[in-house]
Order: sequence, then C-alpha cells, then structure tokens
Amino acid sequence: MHSAVAVDLTTLSAADAAARIRDGRLSPVALVEALIARIKTVDARIDAWVHLDEAGARAAAAALEAEARRGAIRGALHGVPVGIKDIFHVSGMPTRAGSRPFAHSMPAADATSVARLRAAGAIVLGKTHTTEFAFRDPAPTRNPWNREHTPGGSSSGSAAAVASRLVPLALGSQTVGSVLRPAAYCGIVGLKPTHGLVPVDGVIPLAWSLDHVGSFGRSVEDAALALAVAAGRSLPIEPVRAPRLALAPELVQRADAAVAAQINAAVSAFARAGATITDVKLPASFAELHEAGQRVLEAEAAAYHEPALGKHRDDFGASIRGLAETGLRQPAPVYVRANRLRLRFRDDVMPTLAECDALISPTAPATAPRGLGWTGDASLCAPWSSAGTPSISLPSGVDAAGLPHAIQLVGAAHTESRLLSVAAWCERILAFSATPAC
Amino acid sequence: MHSAVAVDLTTLSAADAAARIRDGRLSPVALVEALIARIKTVDARIDAWVHLDEAGARAAAAALEAEARRGAIRGALHGVPVGIKDIFHVSGMPTRAGSRPFAHSMPAADATSVARLRAAGAIVLGKTHTTEFAFRDPAPTRNPWNREHTPGGSSSGSAAAVASRLVPLALGSQTVGSVLRPAAYCGIVGLKPTHGLVPVDGVIPLAWSLDHVGSFGRSVEDAALALAVAAGRSLPIEPVRAPRLALAPELVQRADAAVAAQINAAVSAFARAGATITDVKLPASFAELHEAGQRVLEAEAAAYHEPALGKHRDDFGASIRGLAETGLRQPAPVYVRANRLRLRFRDDVMPTLAECDALISPTAPATAPRGLGWTGDASLCAPWSSAGTPSISLPSGVDAAGLPHAIQLVGAAHTESRLLSVAAWCERILAFSATPAC
Repeated sequence: MHSAVAVDLTTLSAADAAARIRDGRLSPVALVEALIARIKTVDARIDAWVHLDEAGARAAAAALEAEARRGAIRGALHGVPVGIKDIFHVSGMPTRAGSRPFAHSMPAADATSVARLRAAGAIVLGKTHTTEFAFRDPAPTRNPWNREHTPGGSSSGSAAAVASRLVPLALGSQTVGSVLRPAAYCGIVGLKPTHGLVPVDGVIPLAWSLDHVGSFGRSVEDAALALAVAAGRSLPIEPVRAPRLALAPELVQRADAAVAAQINAAVSAFARAGATITDVKLPASFAELHEAGQRVLEAEAAAYHEPALGKHRDDFGASIRGLAETGLRQPAPVYVRANRLRLRFRDDVMPTLAECDALISPTAPATAPRGLGWTGDASLCAPWSSAGTPSISLPSGVDAAGLPHAIQLVGAAHTESRLLSVAAWCERILAFSATPAC
Repeated sequence: MHSAVAVDLTTLSAADAAARIRDGRLSPVALVEALIARIKTVDARIDAWVHLDEAGARAAAAALEAEARRGAIRGALHGVPVGIKDIFHVSGMPTRAGSRPFAHSMPAADATSVARLRAAGAIVLGKTHTTEFAFRDPAPTRNPWNREHTPGGSSSGSAAAVASRLVPLALGSQTVGSVLRPAAYCGIVGLKPTHGLVPVDGVIPLAWSLDHVGSFGRSVEDAALALAVAAGRSLPIEPVRAPRLALAPELVQRADAAVAAQINAAVSAFARAGATITDVKLPASFAELHEAGQRVLEAEAAAYHEPALGKHRDDFGASIRGLAETGLRQPAPVYVRANRLRLRFRDDVMPTLAECDALISPTAPATAPRGLGWTGDASLCAPWSSAGTPSISLPSGVDAAGLPHAIQLVGAAHTESRLLSVAAWCERILAFSATPAC
C-alpha cells in the first residue's frame, strides 16, 4: 500500500528503517536529521546524551545514502542510527564513563561491538549517559515517563534515549542489572546475551566475570537485530506456537503487590494463548548467590580501579569508591569461594532453564522509584548476570502512576535464538503500545 | 606368530593386555596375580602404593574373566589393572591424600574419572602415594631408576608404579607439574588434557582453575587409552608424516646443559625424520605467568583448606600449610589480576600452538634431583597447567647417572588427538627402550 501520509521518522523501528533504506524508500540523512531535531527538542528534559556527534552522523548518513543509492548495502543496520553507552570506546568521541576528568580518554579505536555495528552500516549518533563507571553513582538522565523518577542504571542514557524516540537502537552493558532494569523502567526492550557472546574489548570494565554487552530497542526484533550484529552471528526469531514457560514463585514473591499482580496477569494471558506454565524451584545454591555475586563484583571492580584509586581517590563517586575499597579489603579465598558458588548456581540452574523455553520473572521488584539518587533494585536481574545466561525484559503495562511494568524472560546459556523467539511470541500477547509523553 | 615362550605379564602394555583379554589369550586373574606378585617383590623398595586392594582386584578380575569368556566385554580396559593417585575417591578404599588422619575419608562413590575407568572394565589395584594434598610435602615413594632420587611429585606413586611395572596404567593429577614431571623423572609417558576435559569430581582439589586429571603409561598409546576413557571420548592416534614442530629457545635455555643437549638431539632426529622445526617466541605475557600461576594456586588452595587449617593447623605439612596461609593473606584483587594474566597468556599463546602440531620443550630443567625432600622443578610444566592446554611427556634417553631424560610436547586446547598423533610419531623416532633395574 502506498501512503501519502508523512511518517514521523522517529517512530520507525530499526528493522523498518533498515528495510526502507535498503529499498530506497528512506533517506538515512532524513532519518538522522529527524532524530537530531527531536533530540534538540526533547533531550534538555531527558539528558540521555553526554556527547552528540551531529557532524559525524550527518557525514556518515550522507555516505551511506550514496552507497545505498548505488545498491551497496553494508549490512543489517545500513543507515540506522545508534546510541552507545559512554563506557564503550568509539573512535573519535571521548569516553567519559560518567567519571571525573582524570578518567576521560579519547580512544583511537572502536570497541569490537561498536566496530561490528558500524561495519553493518550503523551510524553512531553519539554517546549516552552512564552512571559513574557503570555502578550506582547516578547519571543526570531522567525517566521519559516521569522526570521525577529514575530511568534506572547504569545504562541510563541508552534506555531513556530509545524510550523517548531519540534513537531506535542503543548499546548498553549489564554487570548486575544495568540493561534489563533501565529497559523495564523506561518501557522498552532490553536484552543481554550469554556471557562472552559479545566481546567486551574496548568497554571499560566493572567486573569482568559479570560484564555483558547488551542492546536496547522498542521491540524484540530490534533488540535482537542489534545484538546479532554485535555478536557477529545470526540470531533468528522463529515462529513459536505453544511455548513452555517456567515460573519461579520465589522470584515473584520478591516483587511488590502491583508487580506480582502484573506478572500473574501476563502469565494468565500467555496460558490462554497456548503456553504451558510450569512452576519451578530454583536450586539451593540460589540462597547464597546474591552475596556471592556481590563479592565477585567488589573484588573485580577493585582489581580494575585500584591504580586510579591510589591517585584520584577524591575524584571517585561514593558508591564506586565504596565498592572498590570494600573489594581491596577482601581476602582472595573469599573471592574464590564466591566465584565458585556463582558457577555452581549456573550449573545447577541450567537443567531447569534447558527444560523450558523461558523462565518468567519480574525484571525488577517495583516500577521505577521516585528520585534520581537511587537507580533502583537490580536483585531480580542479578542472578542471570551471575549465571551468564541470556535474559530479556519486555514492557508489559503501566502502573497506576503511569510508569511501565515489565517482565523478564531468561534462557539457558547459548539459546539466544530460542529465547528471542519466545520473547517475540510474548510481545505479541502483551501488545504493549503505550508511549511516554515526553 | 604363535610362541610357546612365556610372556612376563608385567611387561605387557595396557593396550596389548586388553587386546589379549578380548581375544581370550590372557586371563585377567593371571595378570592381576602377576602384578601383585611383583608388587610384593618390588614395592618395599619403591613404596608406590599406599593401599593395595588384593581381594577386590582378585574378585574383579575373576568377574571380568568370566564375562570375557562369554564374550561380554565392558570396554577398552576390560581386565586391565590401574593404579589411582590417592587424592581420587575410589569407593570402598580410604582416601588419605598424603595427609594426617584428620583429613582421611572412606568415600561411598568413585571419582567420575575412576567410575569411567571401571565402567570400561579396568580393575583398580589400589591407591598410589601422593605428596600431601598434591603439593610439595613429599610422598615416601622412591625413583625406580635410583632410590636415592625423587620420583617427582605430586603423583609420585602413580609414576613410580607404572615405571617399575607394578601396573600398566595409572591416574594422576597435575596442578602445576604433577603428572608430566614425575613421568619424566621415572622414564614413562605422562599426559594431561585440556583443562576441564576430564571431570575433577571426586578428586581432592589443590587449585580448581589449574587442576587436571592426567594419565601415566609406558607408551603414548597406553596413556591415550586411559585418558580417552577418563574423558569419555575417542582420542584417536592418526598416522603422521611430516609434523610441524615449534621450539621456543627461551624454554630450552631454562634447562641445564645436559637437558638442553638432549632436547637439541631429539629435535635433530625429528628433523631428519621429516619434521619441520620452527623457532617460536612466547607472548610477552609469559614473563608474568609464573608469578600469576603462583598467586592463583595460593588463593585457591587457601579457599579449600581454610576451614581445616583453623582446626588442624599443626597436622598440615609445612609446604601445603605455607601455601595456604600465604593465600589467606592475599587480597582478592591480586588474585583477580593474576587469574586474568593467566587467561591472557592462554589466549595469547593459542595461535602459536594452533599453527604447529606440537610445541617442544624440556619437561623439567634437569633429570630427577637427588634426595626425597624436594620433588623437583615444575616450572617448565607450569605454563601449560596455567594455560590449560594439553601436554605430554615422553622419555627420550638416560643421562650419565642413568636417570631418564624427557621431552614435553604441548598442543592447543582441545587438540588432544593431534597432539597424541604427533607424540606417537616422536615416540617411534626416540625409540626409548631402557628400563629401571628395580
């Protein structure tokens, strides 16, 4: 169908934009201009971007447009603008990592994940705000659904930018709950893969054993598209008819009443649509997992930040400094046992995950908390960062205050394609269509 | 060819014994009796065995003989006796781990590797002496080539038992150099696989990140046979014509003059036989690897032994206690950085290993040292324990004092079959046939 009605280009999905650019129906330059115009209107109130590369994005768009015109398509993201969390190195843009100037750098090369996006034709529109060193000292970013609430962290800017239609796709990272939690709070899709699937080269570490590169989009398809490119592999979304979903009541019990009710409503809808729902129990090692993950996080953050802490202690935020200093005092055997506990949980839980198509959990125990000082509770994302298993957050509704609800789906290691297929099925049932007013 | 000459059953290889048993030409009972008789004659001077299960071995041999008679062959080791290092649990035999009584146990189940050997028809003849908790406080075992010299450690009894024809096969473990070094000192083949290829369940840990189950035999074929069964997979030895061998001069330089001359002679022989020899340089991360491996060892040993050290400090040998107490004082970030350095070396060296069929190195800087107090220098085995890559030691001659020389071959991770194929080729060129006088 041909339509004369002008499309608001900022509403396009990445997949749709890429398809239109490939077909010659959309100009990458026009798309970039529309997004820059919206950023100039909206971002003063959201503060998602720490660095906007207008000139670079325009030049890239012009070049990609010329290539597209002669049929030279670089890849799946040809002409699609992306935002990059400011702990990733992007050649020619400063990396600030939410930190004071002592830690800023001007990288000569892209992070591997960023390089892969660019090689597939993506346009890096700029860098998005992160909490300090991707821990808990907050970014200035506000929640697009309500500026008085946190967008979550640590990938605050990436989540808020995608939610407020300043860019269709963004990269973030998750060490505890830094992709899925802000995605949930901002009403978009956040996805992190199996640990190690996307290289972390060129990303400032928080804790190597737990750090994951992840993606943000406004649909499962878009988040999957970005992740597949960053991972350098195909992650096809296949048709699903009657998914086998697992529900761990002990996880739902950790949520507040509104979130629990929302999860139960989603589960009922999935069951009505043909899903099999099975209650499962997490392995005994889950009881110690939270503490173990915290010990691993402290020690690895300390191992990375120790040299700088010696020289610039007063230039660190209180949260990241406290984390690293706690890690400096940790005896090595405590770390060794914590890391083993984490890996034991991973091994213990894998059969449960392998037997279902996805485990359903709340993404967070509550919707986005009020205030910008606290980025929210990551405890329901953390188990899957510790286990290194893929997880995805889908928006599932809005609460009484108008803030997004979300559900988390978790898969077994290296089953991204199956998880994404089920997530796309769930997304259709949830039919979430609300948008922030910003 | 049929021969009426009686074979000394203690000289049979495991592969030959297994073939004869399958064909009905050898009685497992006769084989067990021959080995027990030899143990009774010889082991008072070698002290390889901490526990000999005569009754159990005889009963197993009788059962396996009856099965073989009716054509029921359990697997590749049907009727073949094995020795098990006394840090592995063997159901019904005490696990002493070279330690004082506080740490002794009577396990109800076999270690996974032992269970696999038994499922393939192996007969556990008994447990072989280990240094205390597989570290450096020595076992009583003596070197079969010269009782005044160490057999090496920590798998002292397994190496000495196989060398002195008390058993054709044995399991051991290597955390630093505890399979290949005693194999080298005792003039036999010692083999360890890629880290994790053989499960370590039911083996008392020294340092989880570095612990490997390995095998001892008097030929590459036998060591490979035991390892394949323990790993639960096929590790075929394929014909090799012109292997590509790499030599790192910086490793040869760490050996004494006699060992270096011996390595160079072996390399010349390989070249004359058609091998390509390429000098290679180890990656820069090798410079820090030794220290990094030591930090990982200390911390992980401390993590395991900390509870017992609190209660039984005076019952620990000085070496293992010193190791664990050093680990208890280690800050976690030191461990984290050391472990990352180790993994970086693994990643850095892998292309070098992948480009050749095997890297040649001395197994140890010298032949077996005099005295039983020191189990010898593990520094040339250690890099491959830290990197987790497969390695094998082959006897290559005897020195002026009548003690065995050895060469070490190292392969890339998960290329056991290629490494074993090259090792079998080298073994034919070396044509080592000396035997200890014991």
